[in-house]
Amino acid sequence: MAKSAVQRGRISKKVYEAQLPELREQLVQLQVQLKGAPFKLVLIVAGVAGAGRGDVLNALGEWLDPRGVETFSFHTPTDEERDRPLMWRYWRSLPANGRIGVFAGSWYTETLREQAKGKKELAQLDHELRRIRHFEKLLTDNGALVLKVWLHLSKENQRDRLRALESDPDKAWRVTDDDWDAHRQYDELAETARHIVRETDRPNAAWTVIDAADERARNLAVGQLIVRRLQSHFKRMQRRLATRPKLPLMPRSLAPSGLRRLRNTPLDQKLSEDDYERKREKWLGRLHRSIRSAQAARRSVVFVFEGWDAAGKGGAIRRLTSAIDVRFYRVVPIAKPTEEEISHHYLWRFWRHIPRDGYMTIFDRSWYGRVLVERLEGFARNDEWRRAYDEINDFEEQLTEHGTIVIKFWMHVSKEEQLRRFRAREGTAYKNHKINAEDWRNRRKWGAYEVAIGDMLALTNTSFAAWHVIPANNKRFARLQILKTACNAIEEALEK
Amino acid sequence: MAKSAVQRGRISKKVYEAQLPELREQLVQLQVQLKGAPFKLVLIVAGVAGAGRGDVLNALGEWLDPRGVETFSFHTPTDEERDRPLMWRYWRSLPANGRIGVFAGSWYTETLREQAKGKKELAQLDHELRRIRHFEKLLTDNGALVLKVWLHLSKENQRDRLRALESDPDKAWRVTDDDWDAHRQYDELAETARHIVRETDRPNAAWTVIDAADERARNLAVGQLIVRRLQSHFKRMQRRLATRPKLPLMPRSLAPSGLRRLRNTPLDQKLSEDDYERKREKWLGRLHRSIRSAQAARRSVVFVFEGWDAAGKGGAIRRLTSAIDVRFYRVVPIAKPTEEEISHHYLWRFWRHIPRDGYMTIFDRSWYGRVLVERLEGFARNDEWRRAYDEINDFEEQLTEHGTIVIKFWMHVSKEEQLRRFRAREGTAYKNHKINAEDWRNRRKWGAYEVAIGDMLALTNTSFAAWHVIPANNKRFARLQILKTACNAIEEALEK
Repeated sequence: MAKSAVQRGRISKKVYEAQLPELREQLVQLQVQLKGAPFKLVLIVAGVAGAGRGDVLNALGEWLDPRGVETFSFHTPTDEERDRPLMWRYWRSLPANGRIGVFAGSWYTETLREQAKGKKELAQLDHELRRIRHFEKLLTDNGALVLKVWLHLSKENQRDRLRALESDPDKAWRVTDDDWDAHRQYDELAETARHIVRETDRPNAAWTVIDAADERARNLAVGQLIVRRLQSHFKRMQRRLATRPKLPLMPRSLAPSGLRRLRNTPLDQKLSEDDYERKREKWLGRLHRSIRSAQAARRSVVFVFEGWDAAGKGGAIRRLTSAIDVRFYRVVPIAKPTEEEISHHYLWRFWRHIPRDGYMTIFDRSWYGRVLVERLEGFARNDEWRRAYDEINDFEEQLTEHGTIVIKFWMHVSKEEQLRRFRAREGTAYKNHKINAEDWRNRRKWGAYEVAIGDMLALTNTSFAAWHVIPANNKRFARLQILKTACNAIEEALEK
Repeated sequence: MAKSAVQRGRISKKVYEAQLPELREQLVQLQVQLKGAPFKLVLIVAGVAGAGRGDVLNALGEWLDPRGVETFSFHTPTDEERDRPLMWRYWRSLPANGRIGVFAGSWYTETLREQAKGKKELAQLDHELRRIRHFEKLLTDNGALVLKVWLHLSKENQRDRLRALESDPDKAWRVTDDDWDAHRQYDELAETARHIVRETDRPNAAWTVIDAADERARNLAVGQLIVRRLQSHFKRMQRRLATRPKLPLMPRSLAPSGLRRLRNTPLDQKLSEDDYERKREKWLGRLHRSIRSAQAARRSVVFVFEGWDAAGKGGAIRRLTSAIDVRFYRVVPIAKPTEEEISHHYLWRFWRHIPRDGYMTIFDRSWYGRVLVERLEGFARNDEWRRAYDEINDFEEQLTEHGTIVIKFWMHVSKEEQLRRFRAREGTAYKNHKINAEDWRNRRKWGAYEVAIGDMLALTNTSFAAWHVIPANNKRFARLQILKTACNAIEEALEK
């Protein structure tokens, strides 16, 4: 907090009105420029009671073109929100690139409110602040400009503001009991706020503390901050966009142990049809029971199906879902992102589909596209896909911390088996659509993919979300293996 | 139910497998064709316990390209869903044009389940069925193909199916207590189901009853139904798309009383600044209290702001929101629809923003664009905008029935006053962006807009959602009038 400049002084109405036109013109021009830019502005307006968060939002509403702005505020979480990790409600409120999201309080509000009531241990608070830091870093790494404004009032100023409002019979309604409660707790709240601001004040997402004693000075300070920071952000982004990634002919492995694991997976399993059908029903029954136990315990499950083209993901998913009541799961096939998805962080489209407690989502391909196809085709820059391993681990950690059971499969076939299946698909009219030029192109890059898959297996094989490599040359064996693995993973998670 | 063909007979595995390839090829080709089409396929799979809804969904999952299909099923509504009108949860699950939505049970599930338990009076059930009919009509009017499949089993077949499963130790888990409950209540459930099917069997969205006694025959029947109906739907849609709307030079008024109301609105009000400020604070205070009462009563509020360009909607909204805690309202500015919005029914983008109980949404422009700009610019065909009055009335009725308070303003200025404001905007740098060629174009169509506005005022001025025409030549007068009207409307609604 000490690091940021505190705005001081009073501004007369005359000076204010003389400065406004230029500020408003700048804001509007920047907004036009932002419209086509590959990033968003996330503005957080937090602060003490009586400092005028609502007034600032109203001023911004007047100055900015409302068609490019969304304003968000958060109240008690709904059950749909409580049934998912903490940050889910914020992910679903993020604006798209080219737009401005104004957040009243935002992810700081709940944190601050609860701490003030003494509900949380410091360790828990710091854990949440770590999540917030990570979330903001993820946004800024992705190009977003994150501006955080803390509206400050001294205890005396706060008292004077509240009293002045109360003494005017027409304005007294603006002061609530909550405001006076906050005033009485001023010192405790200020201490928590200092702690929160200090712990989340980072170069990529710094706090600006603005003195709210004078309303006009406060509004101008917020407006000018947006202008200044947007201008410099445009310059920074231009430099960044100028560097396009160069694709190496053959990617270099970051963690060779994964590649070894992949190559050492035996693929010559046998399983007769009779044997398969008998065992399948047994395991389906067991899986069905374990899923019902998970539901009874209000645990959700996320399945990730990754694998070579034609490895049999679709069939395996259908065998799996035949054990589940259709009301409790959702299969989400991941193809090329839509325009809307492209204008968000790549994890955004997956956060949207995180299941509620007691439900299941099955991803047919997933966020791992970031470190596979996006890495190999240059859709992600080097820094982007390299960063993704950490981002993904953190994402999955958030899920498992919330209680979600995360089960990840890599379905592995040999290059020869893939060729056989491609040809069979081409020869079957109703499977024709399952194979196209892109599949053949990917196949020619088999070696490159092996490296990327290996890195993925090594770098995202965590204690909370391990990779299961499924030998899939034999479809029956693979399907059964998936049923068993799913079953064991759920049972194990429930025992903890 | 009698009208629809019931499929009968058994199909051997050999015949099944001989017929499958052609069926699958047709399905996949139709799916490719659908991808670029301006409509969606909504497939509802409902039916009795043990008839194999899940199996049918799984078969479709195998036959169709999953990237173009979404599957939905509905369980107990969440609080976010209970806090909004009945149909909200279905609106938010609709697929976009070019895609297939498969609904397990869907809007029929809850209706059927509750009725079976005797919870609802017949009148209430029929009211819900009317809503469902309306919803499906709205979808099909908009081009959607709605296919409804009822999987039928006789009481004996049901018993045999459940017993056969139970006698196989590996499959016994598939049979739940709920299934046997449903079997015991077979006759009562069948009667309710017959009633529901009869009441919702309409030419635009007919039921097809499929005998599910033989699993293979059942699957083939569903697949063939999709092929047959999609093929004929493509033909019908081609004819429809061939007719483009012709725009008349001057639209003809459908309900002249609205135009008279508009033209007879006096616009010469005066209000001094002192007078305004004093009254404003008084009314803001009263509005604040009435909004808190609405929140305490868990009532939501929807504000609709429509008006001539430059009539002062933005300013009026900001005055209004200065009385509301920022956590409880959301301003939604409506501009040109996005690609995603265009691929849905025009009401879809508004349903998305319907507030939860206790919250407020303020629409800066709204669904009335359908009967204003879309009517006058030919973005909507004649049949589309003419139908819209009823669709909108029904939409608003659903809101108010749920308890939402709907308050609609038309902000009215004279043509001369608009000109004065346009020029002032052009002369002020930071207001320049608020005026463009389109505004001038609209202005040249003043007379045509008067007719469309008049029709809107007359045809959507309902007892549950009346229009308030606000004289807005004098900005202060208009803002105060809006505060007063909002206040009275909320207080009145709370007294009921």
